[in-house]
Amino acid sequence: MNKEVIMNRIEKIRGKMKEENVDLVIFSSSDFHGSEYVADYFKVTEYISGCTSDNVMILLLKDHTYLWTDARYFLSAEEELAGTGISLMKSGEPGVLTLNQMLDQILLSGMTLGYDGATIRSDKGSMFRQIAAGKNARVRGDFKPVDEIWTDRPAFPSGIVSQYLSEEETGESVESKLERVRSELEKKDANAIVISKLDDIMWLFNIRGNDVPYNPVALSYCIISAEEAKLYIQSYREKELKEYAEKNNFTVCDYDGFYEDLEKFEDFDKVWLNYEFCSDRIVEILLTRGVKPVVEAYPTTRFKAIKNETELAGIRECYIADSVVLCRFLYYVQKYVTKERMTELSLSAKLNYMRSTISGYMDLSFATISAYGPNAAIIHYEPKVQSEAEIRPEGFYLVDSGGQYKNGTTDVTRTIALGKITDEMKRDFTFVAMANLRLLNARFLYGCTGANLDMYARGVLWQQGIDYKHGTGHGIGCVLNVHEGPQSIAWRILSPSSGKLNSESVKTVFEPGMITSDEPGIYRDGEYGIRIETVMECVEDSENKYGRFLSFKPLSYVPIDLNSMDVSLLEESDRKNLNAYHKAVYEVIAPHLSDPKELAWLKEATKEV
Amino acid sequence: MNKEVIMNRIEKIRGKMKEENVDLVIFSSSDFHGSEYVADYFKVTEYISGCTSDNVMILLLKDHTYLWTDARYFLSAEEELAGTGISLMKSGEPGVLTLNQMLDQILLSGMTLGYDGATIRSDKGSMFRQIAAGKNARVRGDFKPVDEIWTDRPAFPSGIVSQYLSEEETGESVESKLERVRSELEKKDANAIVISKLDDIMWLFNIRGNDVPYNPVALSYCIISAEEAKLYIQSYREKELKEYAEKNNFTVCDYDGFYEDLEKFEDFDKVWLNYEFCSDRIVEILLTRGVKPVVEAYPTTRFKAIKNETELAGIRECYIADSVVLCRFLYYVQKYVTKERMTELSLSAKLNYMRSTISGYMDLSFATISAYGPNAAIIHYEPKVQSEAEIRPEGFYLVDSGGQYKNGTTDVTRTIALGKITDEMKRDFTFVAMANLRLLNARFLYGCTGANLDMYARGVLWQQGIDYKHGTGHGIGCVLNVHEGPQSIAWRILSPSSGKLNSESVKTVFEPGMITSDEPGIYRDGEYGIRIETVMECVEDSENKYGRFLSFKPLSYVPIDLNSMDVSLLEESDRKNLNAYHKAVYEVIAPHLSDPKELAWLKEATKEV
Repeated sequence: MNKEVIMNRIEKIRGKMKEENVDLVIFSSSDFHGSEYVADYFKVTEYISGCTSDNVMILLLKDHTYLWTDARYFLSAEEELAGTGISLMKSGEPGVLTLNQMLDQILLSGMTLGYDGATIRSDKGSMFRQIAAGKNARVRGDFKPVDEIWTDRPAFPSGIVSQYLSEEETGESVESKLERVRSELEKKDANAIVISKLDDIMWLFNIRGNDVPYNPVALSYCIISAEEAKLYIQSYREKELKEYAEKNNFTVCDYDGFYEDLEKFEDFDKVWLNYEFCSDRIVEILLTRGVKPVVEAYPTTRFKAIKNETELAGIRECYIADSVVLCRFLYYVQKYVTKERMTELSLSAKLNYMRSTISGYMDLSFATISAYGPNAAIIHYEPKVQSEAEIRPEGFYLVDSGGQYKNGTTDVTRTIALGKITDEMKRDFTFVAMANLRLLNARFLYGCTGANLDMYARGVLWQQGIDYKHGTGHGIGCVLNVHEGPQSIAWRILSPSSGKLNSESVKTVFEPGMITSDEPGIYRDGEYGIRIETVMECVEDSENKYGRFLSFKPLSYVPIDLNSMDVSLLEESDRKNLNAYHKAVYEVIAPHLSDPKELAWLKEATKEV
Repeated sequence: MNKEVIMNRIEKIRGKMKEENVDLVIFSSSDFHGSEYVADYFKVTEYISGCTSDNVMILLLKDHTYLWTDARYFLSAEEELAGTGISLMKSGEPGVLTLNQMLDQILLSGMTLGYDGATIRSDKGSMFRQIAAGKNARVRGDFKPVDEIWTDRPAFPSGIVSQYLSEEETGESVESKLERVRSELEKKDANAIVISKLDDIMWLFNIRGNDVPYNPVALSYCIISAEEAKLYIQSYREKELKEYAEKNNFTVCDYDGFYEDLEKFEDFDKVWLNYEFCSDRIVEILLTRGVKPVVEAYPTTRFKAIKNETELAGIRECYIADSVVLCRFLYYVQKYVTKERMTELSLSAKLNYMRSTISGYMDLSFATISAYGPNAAIIHYEPKVQSEAEIRPEGFYLVDSGGQYKNGTTDVTRTIALGKITDEMKRDFTFVAMANLRLLNARFLYGCTGANLDMYARGVLWQQGIDYKHGTGHGIGCVLNVHEGPQSIAWRILSPSSGKLNSESVKTVFEPGMITSDEPGIYRDGEYGIRIETVMECVEDSENKYGRFLSFKPLSYVPIDLNSMDVSLLEESDRKNLNAYHKAVYEVIAPHLSDPKELAWLKEATKEV
């Protein structure tokens, strides 16, 4: 991105600020629904700064601009912001002020803080409002200067429903799902629940859309009460949707009519909200109306996370097909790296193509991370035409990828040696493999959350004085978002900045039927990156007088590169874990390989050590 | 206890209930200060039921009596309650109603629930009040029928201050401690803090007492504000105390005047309270006055947990002396078990005597658990004259003990084989040793809480499908209570009954200077019990680009019984951990042993495997 273009855009925003007497503006990379990936229409922070990271907050002052993002994007953001004059604020790094702390320092009595409340999470918005109130400053939650400046802005997503899923495909009817939600409403004595979280809405109504890259969702809101179930969506006039709604006992309404309907709540209404997934705008309207908020995780999020037997059958099937493709791809890379020209992009295209031949394939589940050498140290690296690396027969190649299929959503990462690697690389790889396998093989009492389980993987690297600045595992949807809650595997119970509970996942107990990734890594800046990600199903293990034990079963069946490993570092149980996993990989994958060379490769790649 | 005596007492209470129109009464095993151990005066639940467990709640109805206690006491409580007609409610067992659930079922409109609010934790009391309000039932928080019935009740503790500790002994003056508390008050914008937690008060005023068995504390309350620091204690007229108070800028007041002073708070006052450690009576008075409660963990609890250099030096020293005695004791038991008559009580007396010869010894820090064979499966077993076991040269002997010294408080558990043991016993012992050593050797990023760390130990046993129904570790005071918060090592982030955060310790980050036990175990009912407890100091480990790592250093140096171990089950790192620990044990303890036989035993007991 041309730096002058960026500076020009920022100046235009400053012009608007001056016109409307706004002293500070906050911009967020969110859409109206708190989505992880957003449609291009919502990429306001990228438009302003050129920074392509997700999870960005920008604070624009009259004389300076600050941009916050998290550790996954530090390296890429640094490059993208170079020369723009925008200060990169590395969230979570020692000594780096948070946006709240900065606001607290800068806001003065009489100043005006502006932002678009529809793109700000309500819990963040309420902190801004609290800080402003403490300083006697004003807040304008409807300040959207970019709307006028951004003339060639991409179109607003269409809200078209692309799939209507039957009970046979989803394992549960809309009626049954609505009934479960209503029974939760009753338990909480709430009159209604307001949901703007897209994957929850898709799950609830058994529909899918195409509004957000990689996430098969349609922009929508819903309000459910004992009497009504209303889906707000731009395509509400479509005949098929209307008929589907009628058949399933819900009403379709205009997407833009949602906020008006919020205004109809009465001051005695108890409305279930999740402040992590509602916008500041939604919550402000309701609180101004005087409703009593019931602030809790959405029941839909938990219901969705616990997959039913139909979903599990589909997921297991598509993970096998997906694993077969990845095995064949890895064979290809290792075999031909000395013979063909390969680049990060050519390999990513090759893998995407191979995946697309799987029956039921619809899309990627996220942008393939195809990273060679030092690029793999950038946790969320995406190769670009101008800067991609050529693959050579040495060092590590990391590929993190997944697909959206008719019967499930996949995600898998493997790192492989393409030739000579150093002893340190082998050590690092071996510890990552041990971490991955220990979590995969954990047996644990019912009641565990991700903060307990994280130690099985992360503890292995901590013991070596190493950490990775990302979670060990995230939930994964079924024909839905590749990242979904409420469970995750991460160690921090308290947020280091606020000292409060870190997130809902800290309180989320693992349940059989939950699908979670297991992806420890080691990243050596400027040298290499290693990540091994196996997706797992949580299952019943055994019950005895000590209680009910759960464990995990792998869904991904792809060899862990033995060439990258120093087997002498493995403990006895790690060796057993590795051999057992590889035995299973061979048994599951071999029947699907017809090429004898691929089969021979698999045999060698899964041999006992 | 004679069953008829019990039934007779219960009938007398029922008479009082009838007189005063009370339908249900709750009794608790607490004193007015939420102490873990209580003076005999407060043993109301034991008086009523004959049950000697701590952590007891009794619900007495017109026609039935229920008694709740936790897993540590299930076996002993079952024996003690046999024939009394009192139903034992095993807290936390599947399907067992909690006291709250029972109240919710039994309380009817118009009924009256009675209890002594001074002996009920305020968070529990407020639940009782909430349930009663929902049922339209009355609450009498001043119903104390036992006061009149219990004619030979032990005297109320004296409140005598037995030790005045200098800054040289404690490492910090009263003035400095009060200043730190006041600075916390300022941060929370609170007018005052009300503390009834005895060890916090002792720590704050650098005094000790003799009112509670094993805990060197004097019954007292305190109220600290910016202007005043008031200590409420029965011995407030003692000249030495008065002079000490004057010198240290605080005021001593009558213990009984505390509640009157609570009545003096105004409705605009913000008062810092900890609902886990304040009684229902304290909180009810303050809330009725209309004060604004600041509900937070006490700063004193956290300050006290992080030992200063003076305290640490004393602790390290007394743990060595204590470890030497335990080594000599274990040598004696193993060597003479075939030659002398030994019983659980004779061994406990022997060990207590040996400990009393240590310079600076004052008292035991808790009742020695000297348990042979199946008795060791009772987690909080205490041998009794009538029922103690004779020690024979076979099976396991478990000893869990500690002392109060001038410079610290100790706690240590070892289990040893006294002859032949089965392969299963060896397996179990080896896994407990692995669990203990893995936690002791953990390296972890700053920010970890006990819910993270618990996995290092407990995970080893979970992997075998085994659990122990107690925490892995508790904080330990310095010349104070052998169990202290706020940190602990336990896995449950959520309470299984309430679904809420389990306790303050879940949110307590480990800090260098914290002293914590590491005591996994395996208990086979009717067969044997194994526990290995090593007390550890949390220390700085290393800092690198991944962050600030902490680790533990042992304070207890006592061999882990190699005769009980199946070394072939150890992983390579466990073997290294074991050898490193034993090497340190030999180096630390050997210089203190003069008897060549003891020295030879130590050499053998700490040999490399």
